[in-house]
This record gives sequence, C-alpha cells and structure tokens, in this order.
Amino acid sequence: MPFTQIEYGVADGIATLTLNRPERLNAFTLTMRRELIEAFDLADTDDAVRAVVVTGAGRAFCAGADLAGGGDTFTRAGDHEDQENIDGVPRDGGGTVALRIAASLKPVIGAVNGPAVGVGVTMTLPMDVRIAADTAKFGFVFARRGIVTEAASSWFLPRIVGISQAMEWAATGRVFSAAEALEGRLVSKVHPAGELLPAAYALAREIADNTSGVSVAAIRRLMWSGLSAISPWEAHAADSRLMLDLGRGADAIEGVTSFLEKRPARFTMKVSEVDVPFWPENPYGV
Amino acid sequence: MPFTQIEYGVADGIATLTLNRPERLNAFTLTMRRELIEAFDLADTDDAVRAVVVTGAGRAFCAGADLAGGGDTFTRAGDHEDQENIDGVPRDGGGTVALRIAASLKPVIGAVNGPAVGVGVTMTLPMDVRIAADTAKFGFVFARRGIVTEAASSWFLPRIVGISQAMEWAATGRVFSAAEALEGRLVSKVHPAGELLPAAYALAREIADNTSGVSVAAIRRLMWSGLSAISPWEAHAADSRLMLDLGRGADAIEGVTSFLEKRPARFTMKVSEVDVPFWPENPYGV
Amino acid sequence: MPFTQIEYGVADGIATLTLNRPERLNAFTLTMRRELIEAFDLADTDDAVRAVVVTGAGRAFCAGADLAGGGDTFTRAGDHEDQENIDGVPRDGGGTVALRIAASLKPVIGAVNGPAVGVGVTMTLPMDVRIAADTAKFGFVFARRGIVTEAASSWFLPRIVGISQAMEWAATGRVFSAAEALEGRLVSKVHPAGELLPAAYALAREIADNTSGVSVAAIRRLMWSGLSAISPWEAHAADSRLMLDLGRGADAIEGVTSFLEKRPARFTMKVSEVDVPFWPENPYGV
Repeated sequence: MPFTQIEYGVADGIATLTLNRPERLNAFTLTMRRELIEAFDLADTDDAVRAVVVTGAGRAFCAGADLAGGGDTFTRAGDHEDQENIDGVPRDGGGTVALRIAASLKPVIGAVNGPAVGVGVTMTLPMDVRIAADTAKFGFVFARRGIVTEAASSWFLPRIVGISQAMEWAATGRVFSAAEALEGRLVSKVHPAGELLPAAYALAREIADNTSGVSVAAIRRLMWSGLSAISPWEAHAADSRLMLDLGRGADAIEGVTSFLEKRPARFTMKVSEVDVPFWPENPYGV
Repeated sequence: MPFTQIEYGVADGIATLTLNRPERLNAFTLTMRRELIEAFDLADTDDAVRAVVVTGAGRAFCAGADLAGGGDTFTRAGDHEDQENIDGVPRDGGGTVALRIAASLKPVIGAVNGPAVGVGVTMTLPMDVRIAADTAKFGFVFARRGIVTEAASSWFLPRIVGISQAMEWAATGRVFSAAEALEGRLVSKVHPAGELLPAAYALAREIADNTSGVSVAAIRRLMWSGLSAISPWEAHAADSRLMLDLGRGADAIEGVTSFLEKRPARFTMKVSEVDVPFWPENPYGV
Repeated sequence: MPFTQIEYGVADGIATLTLNRPERLNAFTLTMRRELIEAFDLADTDDAVRAVVVTGAGRAFCAGADLAGGGDTFTRAGDHEDQENIDGVPRDGGGTVALRIAASLKPVIGAVNGPAVGVGVTMTLPMDVRIAADTAKFGFVFARRGIVTEAASSWFLPRIVGISQAMEWAATGRVFSAAEALEGRLVSKVHPAGELLPAAYALAREIADNTSGVSVAAIRRLMWSGLSAISPWEAHAADSRLMLDLGRGADAIEGVTSFLEKRPARFTMKVSEVDVPFWPENPYGV
C-alpha cells in the first residue's frame, strides 16, 4: 500500500506517521485524508505497534486545508464520489480523520514540529498527548475563512482546553505561539525543535516497555468513551465487563506475578485478539 | 424599549450591556432579569453587533439577588405571573438569563469590575470569556443563604473550573479574590481596574475586525452544543452540515480569496440570514 | 457495627474515615469495600456529620488491590457471592465504592497521606477535594498489571485532569510524585506531611461552620449530576425545583435574615429530612 502524501514506518514497536507534502507545508487534501485513515487501520491491526507518533516533514506540521483550489475550495467540499454522507450531507473530511484517530487502539502522540493551522490542529485533538516544538504555531482560523470549526473540534476542543479558551481561540481565529498553547493546555510540553521527536519517542517507549498492549487498548477506548455523553453508571458497567474479561487473561496473571516477583513483565496477549468496543458506538461505522 | 435597570448601547460593532443599579450594587431583580434577556435578543437580531461586553455600573459587578424583600426573598421566588413553569415548577430566574446567554449568537465577554456574588457570578458562566479587575471579588454563596447553586451553574461551573474547584467554592460559600479566581481558572485574566474595559474591548475588536460574523455565530453554537450531552459523532454530523452550508457561502469564498491575496477580508453575510440551531434544542423555547 | 479494616469516627461535625490495614499498606479487599460503603451510609444518615475526611493509617494511603492472592487475583474477581451483577457481569468492586462516594450527601475531602496506587487512587476521584502530603505517590498502574482503569475512573479521571493527562498517566502506568499530581491538577494542594490533616480539617470546618447542610447536600448532588451526561436545560429544571423547595425552607429564611442582620447563621434543617435525588438515577440502586 504505497502512500503518496504521508510516510508510515514501524520501528521497535513504535509507528511513525509523517505528513509528507513539505513543499505545500503538508496541507491537507482528500488523498491525505484517505491515507491517514489507512495508516491508522494499519497501526491497529499490527500487533507489533504499541504507540503511534504523528509529525510533519519539513518546517510545518500541517498548514490546514490545501487552498490551491482557490475561493471555492470549501464550496466543492461535497463533490467527491468517495465521501460518505450523513442524511445527504457529505461528511466533513477532517472529521472522518479525527473520529478515526479517536477510535485508535494504540495511543497516539502528536509531535507538532511547526505551524498547525485549521484542520492541521483540529486533527491533533483526538490524539492522546500533544507536545510541540518551540517553533510551532497554532490557529483555529476557521472564522477568518468564513467557515466553522470542523473535525468534531466543537466536541474535542472545549473538553481539552475548556470552553472559555476554546471560544477565545475560535472566535478570534488568532494564530498563536507554542507558549500560548502551553499556557492554555492545548499541548502538555514545549521542547526546543531538536528535542521534540526524542521526547515523543521517550513517552512512546515508556508505554511500550512497561505495559500490556491489550490493557492500553482497552483503557484508551474506555477513557475516550468515558468522556462521551454517558453516565458514570454506564462507565461502571463497561469497565466491570473489561475487568472480568482481562482479569482472567494471561496478561493479568503475568502483571501480578511479575510485580510480586519484582521483575519486568513479559506480556503475551495480542490486541488483535480482544474486543474492546468504542462506546457509544460510532453510527458511521469507523 | 427603554431599560430601567440596565444600560445597552452599540458602538463600532460592539454592544455594551451595563448592569445599572449602582445604589444597590447592581443587585439582581426580576426586572433586571427581563431586561437582560431583551438586551441579548436585541444584540442577536442586530447584524451590526459583532460582540457583547457585559459590565457593572459603579463599584460592583452584581451583588446577587436583591434581598431587600427580607427573609422570605426566595420563598416568594415563584410568585410572579410572568414566570414560565416547568411541570408546575417556576423556572429559576437566574437560569432563564444564563440559558439565554448560552444561546447568544454573538460572543460575550464578561468584564467583572467589582464584586460578583450569587447570581452575579453564575450569570457570567455562559459568557465566553471572563476577565476581572484586581478589585473584583467572587462568591458562590448559596450554601450560606440556605439555597442552592442556581442559574444552571451545576452544569456550567464544573465544566469551566473542574468539579473539585467547583465543589470547594460552592460547599464553603467562601467569598474569594480575583487572584483566587484566576488561579482556579474562573477568569482568564486579571487587570488593574482602569485597564479592564480597554482589555475587554481589545478582545471584542480582535473578533470584530478579523472574522465572519456568520462563522462566529455558528462556531459559538457548535462549541456550546458540543460541550452538552452529545457524542462526538453527533458533533461531526452538526459541523458537517455547517461546513456544507457555510462552505458554499460568500464569506467562505471571500475568506479564502483574501487569504490567498494577502489582504484583509471583507465579509458580507448577515447573521440574521443564517440558521445555526442550538443543539440539543432548548425545550423551554429560548 | 464494628469495622475491621477501616476506622470511622465523628467529632465536631466531621467524620473521619481511616483506611486501616497499615501492615498491608491499607491494600483494598472485599471487606474494605463493604465497610467503606457502610461508612458512607452512616455519614449520610447522621445529621451531625457535615463533612467527611478520608485518609490512611500508617505510611500509605492505599496500595491498591491486595495481591496476596497471587497471579489469579483478578481472575477470581467475580467469585464472591455478595457481589451484585450487571447483565451477568460482576460489578467491579472499586466501582461500587466510587459510585457510593459520588452519591454522598456530605462533602468528601481526600487527605492522601502516602502512596495511593490502583484502586487506592481511583477511589479518591469521586471525592470533592483531594489534598496530598509531599510524601504521597500516585499511580494508575492498571496497564502494568494487565487490567484496565476501574472504579468508573474512565468517567471521572478525564473530567478531573483532562483526557490528555488522564491518558498519559493511564497508558504509561507510571508512579508519580505529589508534585506531578499537583501540576496535573489531580490534587489541589500539597502540604508537608505533618500539616496534611490540619489542612483537611480546616476546609471541613469552613464548610461546617458557615453553611446549611441541606444546601450543601443538594448542591453536591446537583454538581455531580450536572457533570453527568445531561443537557444544561435538564440542569435548569433540577435546580429550579430545588430553589423552590429550599427557598421556602427555614434555612433560606435564616440565611437571608442573618446576612441582613450581619450575624452568623444558625441553620436548623436536617439533611435526613430532604429529598435530593442523584440524577441521572443510578440504575444499580446505590
């Protein structure tokens, strides 16, 4: 499956997904949209992958939707045969990527190496952790382009940074620094540019080297489901079931035994063999 | 429509709404309640208004419910003919204001110039941004008066400052400083008293001068809806529809064209001409 | 009702609940689970109790599930006759405690005096305020044991510390310091070990000495309900009803009168006499 606008590679249990149109500042296209979804499908079905790092080639992370089509870029948003519809409305392309990332079975670390604007930043919201280079810039610029916050960011952003910060950034459309992103808790750490990817890989290693992949997959689904519109009682029902299923598993036995024996655990269960539903179910079938 | 307990004026695309009973520290009454709702109706239907700044006349922002009626102030809360009912229960007056502000089509900036206590602070929670003078004080004092957190603040407050901070303030009923409000993220900035309104207007200008009003109205509804009890998939359906509707509009064409031509945008669409539903729908008909 | 694994006592209107298996670092058992639920039942039905402080005996707060059973500790999680089931799945034990604490009518302050790991930390999430000794440590270590985040923590944790911080802690399973807990807003204050309990009691006193117990009970239920999967309109309906009910009560009259007379209030209503439902209703009948 040759990718043309992204790069995808796996090393030492960590997948790296690189937005790769540096000559266009990695601007987002329908091709990139399709390739991103395929890459997350690859990562989910490859049991060797324990975490995913997403970054950009060249000096940008992603400059947003490619505006090479000119003024009617968004006019034609629904004109593509391969786009799914919801009640006759074409699904927003950024949203299909964001919801696919939200459903990932592997934890996702966004390493924002440069400008992340429009869909370039909203696509990072369903990633678990965002860290940035000190040269990064961010902008929810939709109101300056006459459109709206897309990619389900109206759901993700106020839950991540709070409604006040979300509205200030979205209503002004301001482009802001990595320092402002850190202060507003959009990113959890800012690093000198040369230290960004090492920091992302260090976090990915901490996950890959110490934990059960089956546990992490189940936890990731539980957490993002738990943030959805459900009650604490429904969350309790979901985690009771997973405690029963995983509590009987080889990884739980190894996890406890290795702890009691004060040695590193050797987990053997495979993510591809367990069923950890996203909940509430995505009606659009991601 | 002459107001008696508030002032309302529009200049340069920004509406200013001033609580105006300085001799009573702008204490909240049923008249003020009605006038606040009418003022937000005015701002929403006036296409010249791009943002709303709310502040108080004199040294207070709002001292809370007017207690001039004495000990039975809240006993009589339901005794007013003009109050809507929910299943026989009179709607809490502060709540009718708060939900009206939540539904505003224009972004709302609270400029808290002095004490904001009881409904004086809960009415600010559905505003998008709160900034405060260093002389401001805050208090969720309901438990010290034998009543409860009203104005739907049990929904807004834990989403804005987190449940732990919300419960600490509400269970103690403590009156606290602007510094504590900033630390607890109830306000986003604290200014010397003389610099408060200029800061509020600077933020309003940043919105008015750079963005499409139609985009901001749609984004505001999406964000507050997105924070409500819906799933990310429902948010995706909502923003897909608005991307289609606005993506075809004159403001999107101008937004992209002006960006490509590196010039300021001249947006021409009118908020009064678009339909941006609040969602989930308010069953009480705001 | 003699407790064997916890201590429970009431003094000056404040209940203290101490996890009391210091020789096992207060590790969690099914007996401790049952006793915790009984202690919260006691606190709720005793009108003399205005707040609950939870801490641990000895050097730990709670080391998590007792692993003395060895590798099949979690395999046997469902093998206990006294456990309720949900559709044939045994209810996770930590979750029954967490949901009971969430439903408490009295505010709950967690005083984390030492290591709080696994269910030892997830049981604190439905407490209103968490403060920690500088010697405390925390760990959501489930992924290192081959199991999942339990005790409905997939619902509580991302709402308290944000989804990014929640996922970083849960996906790595890392054990972290009180300083990292403070930075990540898991606890609101860190104190030298000797000053922890005095700080917890000072906060409990601030509540007990200044507020109506009926108001605080109603506010606590409103706030935790408000954080659940409901709309702001539903929150408005709930607080309108409680404003009507409590607004007519003796505590509201005393609250306003004492304020106008500039004297301390003497509240007389009893929590046991009012009905403040948790909402949405717990289908499992806590």
